[in-house]
Amino acid sequence: MNFSIENLPYGVFSTAVSAPRIGVAFEDDVLDLALLEIEGLLDTHNLFNQPALNAFMGAGREVWTAVRRRLQTLLSEDMPRLRQLHALIPQAQVTMHLPAHIGDYTDFYASRQHATNVGTMFRGAENALPPNWLHLPIGYHGRASSVVISGTPLRRPHGQLKPSPDAPPIFAPSQQLDFELEVGAFIGLGNELGTPIPIAEAQAHIFGLVLLNDWSARDIQRWEYAPLGPFLGKSIGTTISPWVVTLDALEPWRMAGPAQVDPVPLPYLQSTRPWAYDIPLEVHLNGHLISRTNFNQLYWNVAQQLAHHTSNGCNLRPGDLLGSGTISGDTPDSLGSLLEITWGGTRPLTLPDGSQRTFLQDGDTLTLTGGAQGVGFGEARGQILPALESA
Amino acid sequence: MNFSIENLPYGVFSTAVSAPRIGVAFEDDVLDLALLEIEGLLDTHNLFNQPALNAFMGAGREVWTAVRRRLQTLLSEDMPRLRQLHALIPQAQVTMHLPAHIGDYTDFYASRQHATNVGTMFRGAENALPPNWLHLPIGYHGRASSVVISGTPLRRPHGQLKPSPDAPPIFAPSQQLDFELEVGAFIGLGNELGTPIPIAEAQAHIFGLVLLNDWSARDIQRWEYAPLGPFLGKSIGTTISPWVVTLDALEPWRMAGPAQVDPVPLPYLQSTRPWAYDIPLEVHLNGHLISRTNFNQLYWNVAQQLAHHTSNGCNLRPGDLLGSGTISGDTPDSLGSLLEITWGGTRPLTLPDGSQRTFLQDGDTLTLTGGAQGVGFGEARGQILPALESA
Repeated sequence: MNFSIENLPYGVFSTAVSAPRIGVAFEDDVLDLALLEIEGLLDTHNLFNQPALNAFMGAGREVWTAVRRRLQTLLSEDMPRLRQLHALIPQAQVTMHLPAHIGDYTDFYASRQHATNVGTMFRGAENALPPNWLHLPIGYHGRASSVVISGTPLRRPHGQLKPSPDAPPIFAPSQQLDFELEVGAFIGLGNELGTPIPIAEAQAHIFGLVLLNDWSARDIQRWEYAPLGPFLGKSIGTTISPWVVTLDALEPWRMAGPAQVDPVPLPYLQSTRPWAYDIPLEVHLNGHLISRTNFNQLYWNVAQQLAHHTSNGCNLRPGDLLGSGTISGDTPDSLGSLLEITWGGTRPLTLPDGSQRTFLQDGDTLTLTGGAQGVGFGEARGQILPALESA
Repeated sequence: MNFSIENLPYGVFSTAVSAPRIGVAFEDDVLDLALLEIEGLLDTHNLFNQPALNAFMGAGREVWTAVRRRLQTLLSEDMPRLRQLHALIPQAQVTMHLPAHIGDYTDFYASRQHATNVGTMFRGAENALPPNWLHLPIGYHGRASSVVISGTPLRRPHGQLKPSPDAPPIFAPSQQLDFELEVGAFIGLGNELGTPIPIAEAQAHIFGLVLLNDWSARDIQRWEYAPLGPFLGKSIGTTISPWVVTLDALEPWRMAGPAQVDPVPLPYLQSTRPWAYDIPLEVHLNGHLISRTNFNQLYWNVAQQLAHHTSNGCNLRPGDLLGSGTISGDTPDSLGSLLEITWGGTRPLTLPDGSQRTFLQDGDTLTLTGGAQGVGFGEARGQILPALESA
C-alpha cells in the first residue's frame, strides 16, 4: 500500500465539479483538505482551499507537523464523520495538478556513480569526475515553466544537432531522447536574499520529496552545453509525481549516506545529522522494469544541496524545487538513464517484446516509481509524442 | 528628457498611501493607470490595478498599441482632466517595484566582442569563441528569485573559491565581484509547451526592454561552472531598471545589426526584419563614466534569442525575462564588465579620486543608464554591501 496513514502526502486535485484544491492521499482515496478546513476540522485558515501548496509550504514545520497529527487522528478515529462529509474521494475520480507554483527549479549532479559514468564516456576514466565534483554539489538553474505533472505527454523536440564533427550543425528532431531518474525536493520555508541557510537548519526549510524525471535530449545538449551548461536539451519538460511525501513521513527511513572522507567537505557542508533516505526507486519502460536503485545512493544529500545553494545568499522561496540529479547505483541494473544503460547508445537494451532501444522512441512510456512499506511516492509517467512535422 | 510622450514606459509603483499598481513614466511624473482604468478612461478591465504587469503583458500587441495611443491622446489633449484626477504623481514621491512577476529568467551570451574577450583570457586568442558560438545564441537558465529592482543593495557573497591550483578550495567572501552591462527583454504573449515561436512572430511576443546588471562573482563562477554552467556566481542578484520601454516606443530606433554571413545562421534563426536597436548605453562607477557602448553591437538579437529558446518547444510565459548577455563594443572604452576593462584584474582602472579598481569594492555604486532623445531607460543601480561576518 502506497498511501498508508504513515504517509499522507499532499497534492492538488480537481474533480468534475470542483476547482483545484489541496488534498492528501489516503489508501485509494483523496482526503479533501479544503473541505475539512472550511468545516473547521483543522486549526488552519485559508491554507488548503488553494490551487497550490505554496502557502502551506511557507507556513513552517510546526504547522506541517500539527496538521499531520490532526489528519492521523481524524483518519483513525473519525472516519464516519469524514464519510458523512464526503471528504474522501476515490483517486480514480480526480485529476491531479502540479502541487505548487514552482518559482525556480534547480537541478543538481549529485550521484557519484552517475557523474563517473558520464565523465568516463565523455572524458575517459582517468578524468571522469570534474575537479570540483568532490568539493561541492554541482548544480545549475533549470527551467521552471516546463515542469509538468505525471501523465503529461512529452513532444520530441527539434534542436541544433552536430551529428558529424566535420559538417555544420543541422536543425532536426532529437535522436537521443533520454530520461533521468531523480528525486525532487520542495522547499518549505524560504530565506531572504543575502541570508544563507546553515546546514543545521535544513530540516526547517525542506517540505517534502517527489519523483522527478529530468527528460534530456542528449544530442541537443552535447552541442549547446559548453561553456554555459544545459539549456534546450533540458527545457523540453521535467515530469514530477503528484504527491509530495513529507520529511515527517520519511523520518523512519532516514539513514547515513555514502562516506565523505576524501576529501572531507568544507564546514558549511558538514552536518551532524544523517541526511540520506532509504527510498527504493524503479524505472519502467513500456511497463518493463529496466532499472532499480535507491535514493540513499546519492553522494551529496538534499541538506548539503540546500546549504550550498544558499551559501552565496541566493534566496529560496516556498515551492521552489531542487532536483537531486540522476541517481545511479553501482551495478548495471541500477542505472538512472539510458545514456548509462546503453553506454552512450553503443549497447542497445532489449525489451521483452524483442525490440531494442538505445534512446527513447515515439510512443514509449517511461514511468518512475518509488517508496515501500506504506510510504509510496506513486509515479512520474510520460509518453513520447512524435516531433512536429515542421518547427 | 528620458520620459517624453514618445516613450511612456510601464512600471509598478507605490506611494505612502497606495499599494503597488501600474503606472507610466511621463516627464518627471508617474501617470497612475490603475486610477485611469477605474475612472473609465481606458478601454481595459482589471489590467492596471495590479501589483505586476503580467496580465497586461499577456494581453497582446493590439492591446499594448491601443493603450499607448490612448495615453498619448490623453497626455496631449486632456492634461487638465488628468491633473484634476490627481493622476500624475511626482516620481520623487513614489517607490518602484519589480515590473512583473518573473516566472523564469534566461541569460544569453550574445555579444561577439564580449565572448571573444572572455574566451581570449581563458583559452587564448586562437580558441576564443566556442565552436557553437557562431551557430546559435548560447543561453542558460538563470535565477528568477534573485532579480531585484534598481536601488536594492547587493551583499558581497561568500562562496567556494580556488585561489591556488595546488591547494584545496576555501570558503570565503568573493574577491572578484563584477557587473555585467546587459539589456533585458520582457516576454509579452507566451507559448504552450511543445509549440515553438517562429522568428517571424517574435514581434507579437516581446513586450519591452529594461537595463539589466547581471552581477557576477568571477572567482565563485570560475571554480563552479564546469561542466554545468554558472550557478552561485550569478544568483547573488540581478538588478533591472524599473521602467519597461516598449517595442512600440523603440520602433524609430530599429536598425540592422552586425552582419551574420560566416556562417549564415540556420533558417529558424533568419529574419527578414532588422532586429537591432540603436540604444546608447553607459556604465558609471561611483558617478564616474567607465564605459559607453550601444545595444546595436549585439551579435544575436532578441528575436533570434526568442526563436532559439522556443525551438525545442520550451514554453515562455508573460513576464519572463531574457538577458541579452554582456554588451561590449570594439574599443577599450566600450566594454561591458570589469573583467574585460581590467583584463582579468591585470590592468587596474584608476578613478578620478585616484583610487584603483580591479573588481568592485564594498561601498561601490554601479549604475547603468541608457537611451536617448526622449526615449530613455532611467537607470539600474546597486551598491555593494560588505560580506556577512560569518556565513
